[in-house]
Amino acid sequence: MHWEGEKRRRLKELERAIERGEVDEAAIPVLETLNSFEEYCTTSSCSGRVVVLHEPEVGDKIGSEFVAKWHEPPEPEEVREAVLKAPEEGITWVKAQPPLFHVMCRDLEAAVRLRNIASEAGFKASSIRSVKSSKVIVEILGGERMDVPAKVNGKLTLREKAWDSVVALCNDILRSGHERLSRLVEALKGLSR
Amino acid sequence: MHWEGEKRRRLKELERAIERGEVDEAAIPVLETLNSFEEYCTTSSCSGRVVVLHEPEVGDKIGSEFVAKWHEPPEPEEVREAVLKAPEEGITWVKAQPPLFHVMCRDLEAAVRLRNIASEAGFKASSIRSVKSSKVIVEILGGERMDVPAKVNGKLTLREKAWDSVVALCNDILRSGHERLSRLVEALKGLSR
Repeated sequence: MHWEGEKRRRLKELERAIERGEVDEAAIPVLETLNSFEEYCTTSSCSGRVVVLHEPEVGDKIGSEFVAKWHEPPEPEEVREAVLKAPEEGITWVKAQPPLFHVMCRDLEAAVRLRNIASEAGFKASSIRSVKSSKVIVEILGGERMDVPAKVNGKLTLREKAWDSVVALCNDILRSGHERLSRLVEALKGLSR
Repeated sequence: MHWEGEKRRRLKELERAIERGEVDEAAIPVLETLNSFEEYCTTSSCSGRVVVLHEPEVGDKIGSEFVAKWHEPPEPEEVREAVLKAPEEGITWVKAQPPLFHVMCRDLEAAVRLRNIASEAGFKASSIRSVKSSKVIVEILGGERMDVPAKVNGKLTLREKAWDSVVALCNDILRSGHERLSRLVEALKGLSR
């Protein structure tokens, strides 16, 4: 009863977020498939993205801020411009981040099943993130990523000619994450209900 | 009985690996502390490292090979030389990788306890990686890392002047991982037995 109520409330929130355009397109089929199972309920999602992130110093998560985010492959020039306009002091990162889904599971058995299927579908970094008596959180996470310190204390680290190839690699990672999401949806459909 | 036997066997293996110098120094106090608990048994470890890794293409784990590895902060010139001598085709990465420990736990409760204490000690990416009836594997993992594609199809991406700052950042990540290992050891010592 507790589970059903919480799932219903979260699905309503998700519906509103989708209506407001806050959920990236490529994540939606995965969310729908996961939520169609009684024992799973998604709590957050990202289909993978390229970001420009500024940190006053390495690991300062509190002081960090996003300068730009893309869920679809950006142009090299867009990424370069975002890096140029970031603050001078500190570190400006260009990051390609893999797909990431958090899924509340009704019990540990359901969580183990989901982690295993995600891992087999290519999300090798998937794991159980927390276990409480009433619910278990699974993180579905891809393994490929890139974290380039593109500006350090006002100095650009990349050669002018390298922007194209570095952003192309980011975009490869983004696309391969999207492809894997389709594999995950197929794999989930094969799960018995 | 099964658990005790397997733990004894694994500790013997670890002892031999330490004697052969195959275990990085900074990992040893963590391994010793973890193994001093009845319910935990380490199965692999890395105290964090800087690596130069060559991949024929993004995500090709099978074809990838290490060109160089350091468990203590390398000099910028050493890293640059390793990148230069890597194969031309494909992608040569300079990576700073966080500390990573795999710990077999006797039961789920012990695993949840370990994951939580590791997370509180700064290993935010820690998780339960697999759950089987007889044992549970916890991954203790730091969150900070760097993955720079330093040579793409024969072309260096970094400016000559940027090697110092990029390698300095790698080394900051390496050092902050080592500091966190000390915090983890202290936190573990506070766990009741």
